Amino acid sequence: MTPATSLFTPVEADLLLLADNLKQLVGNRHPILFAAAEHLFGAGGKRIRPAIVLLISRATMLEQDITLRHRRLAEITEMIHTASLVHDDVVDESQMRRGVPTVHSLFGNRIAVLAGDFLFAQSSWYLANLDNLEVVKLLSEVIMDLATGEIQQGLNRFDTNISIETYLKKSYYKTASLIANSSKAAGLLSEVSQETAEHLYSYGRDLGLAFQIVDDILDFTSTTDTLGKPAGSDLKSGNLTAPVLFALREKPYLEVLIDREFAQEGDLEQALLLIQDSQGIQKARELASHHAKLAAEHLAVLPPSESHQALINMTDYVLSRLY
Amino acid sequence: MTPATSLFTPVEADLLLLADNLKQLVGNRHPILFAAAEHLFGAGGKRIRPAIVLLISRATMLEQDITLRHRRLAEITEMIHTASLVHDDVVDESQMRRGVPTVHSLFGNRIAVLAGDFLFAQSSWYLANLDNLEVVKLLSEVIMDLATGEIQQGLNRFDTNISIETYLKKSYYKTASLIANSSKAAGLLSEVSQETAEHLYSYGRDLGLAFQIVDDILDFTSTTDTLGKPAGSDLKSGNLTAPVLFALREKPYLEVLIDREFAQEGDLEQALLLIQDSQGIQKARELASHHAKLAAEHLAVLPPSESHQALINMTDYVLSRLY
Repeated sequence: MTPATSLFTPVEADLLLLADNLKQLVGNRHPILFAAAEHLFGAGGKRIRPAIVLLISRATMLEQDITLRHRRLAEITEMIHTASLVHDDVVDESQMRRGVPTVHSLFGNRIAVLAGDFLFAQSSWYLANLDNLEVVKLLSEVIMDLATGEIQQGLNRFDTNISIETYLKKSYYKTASLIANSSKAAGLLSEVSQETAEHLYSYGRDLGLAFQIVDDILDFTSTTDTLGKPAGSDLKSGNLTAPVLFALREKPYLEVLIDREFAQEGDLEQALLLIQDSQGIQKARELASHHAKLAAEHLAVLPPSESHQALINMTDYVLSRLY
Repeated sequence: MTPATSLFTPVEADLLLLADNLKQLVGNRHPILFAAAEHLFGAGGKRIRPAIVLLISRATMLEQDITLRHRRLAEITEMIHTASLVHDDVVDESQMRRGVPTVHSLFGNRIAVLAGDFLFAQSSWYLANLDNLEVVKLLSEVIMDLATGEIQQGLNRFDTNISIETYLKKSYYKTASLIANSSKAAGLLSEVSQETAEHLYSYGRDLGLAFQIVDDILDFTSTTDTLGKPAGSDLKSGNLTAPVLFALREKPYLEVLIDREFAQEGDLEQALLLIQDSQGIQKARELASHHAKLAAEHLAVLPPSESHQALINMTDYVLSRLY
């Protein structure tokens, strides 16, 4: 998910500032948090979420410079995302993330749970200090959605009966909600109309869904090196994503393998072959394209600008990762 | 910490309503959260924090009934407290809490981390919906303080050089901040003056500190049965509380035992005897009395009422737990 740098050109300077600010904001209470913050915000973060917030901020402020509150919103967005990653890594007992060891594997469970709590708490605090109740409500909803999505994913493990709709709902909770609500919030800070705000929300939602679907496809088509985690790990852990759900319609034996949770030797390898041999990955690609296209359409509401163009390019970029 | 019921008489009906509401609020998203909520809010909760919020609400509204927002604040206070307990139990790997098995031991690490996240998130969301930015800021600060206190406690383990001031600061973060800020917030919802609000904050802070010091004494003077967890467990885990810090001034050998983290057989028992043989527990009692007295003094700002009296009685009650 490392976008061509050119995508972020209009906010490149903003993103550099953001990285410095995040380390300072998070690290100022405790040396151990400072170490964790250095680790979290230093290494390989793609900053797609804050980049979208900053691009929307610039695209809606146009002639005027963006405000400190726009910048703070971008930082909050990255804090919330990072907090959820830290807790996901505890929950999933992951050792690697973004190609570097997880906080949980470096500092232990204890610090990882508390560092995540602290990041969530701090983001709520900065949020309150934006002095905009509607924005506070939008982002609080996101934090609830993130926990809901993670719980949902846990409950649905190895459940071959879940529908594409359930998968999309879970993907909304886990990924799209943050992008949708922070996109809308950026617009609200620029005092756009309620109608424009809703379009920005929908842009973020559809872009987020496309991102998640593409991520789920890459788990089947990429190498371990490219992903920074073992390929095929979603399927192995029982997380049934779009390619699997589509493949299940064609390959009844896949259900047998998943139902027994790959208990017999060679089960997982056989399941991967069945998926490759099906239309699953192609259909998932079409679903991602559909949402990327919807996302681009919602941008028609914004006047032309360099940042506007970058937001449109983002909808192409997300799909380009597949090729 | 089960107060004589009479303490809560003015808000007894409110507390019954609160228990029902909490189960519904938390459980409405997922069956697994519903199960956890039943467990968390059903069993042995003492509801001291929401009781204080409700008493302050009634004491500041006087002739008028308290509002739905006062009730919601009481619920949020209990949610935040419960969320922090759930994560503390993960972090400390505790098996029992309030005499019943912890969420973490019943449902596993995964659900415990996520249930805690969900409770924190939900409390932020309800908070935002109180539509009072000052209250949102106060309670967001609390969530940060809770994480800070827990981290601080971890960093200070077995550190015999920490001062009583450091101990009190950590106790503020862990316990008093929530009571102080929710007390102030209850006053703000009743639209008291800023001066009264500050006194309510100080009442909560000093009452909270007294509570924590008493809890820390009980860890040395109570039986395992009364506590619902093994007696002496703070010391064993390296959490050096007021009685220990005072005892260290008289008993140099105690430092040796703690410095080697009770590595030799009989070390812990010997340390407990040294503490019993010192003025440590007595001095900690005096410190608790001092803060309970300060708390009562701050209430002079409120007009007389049944709830006002109950708040004063609370400052006696906290000390009565020692006898």
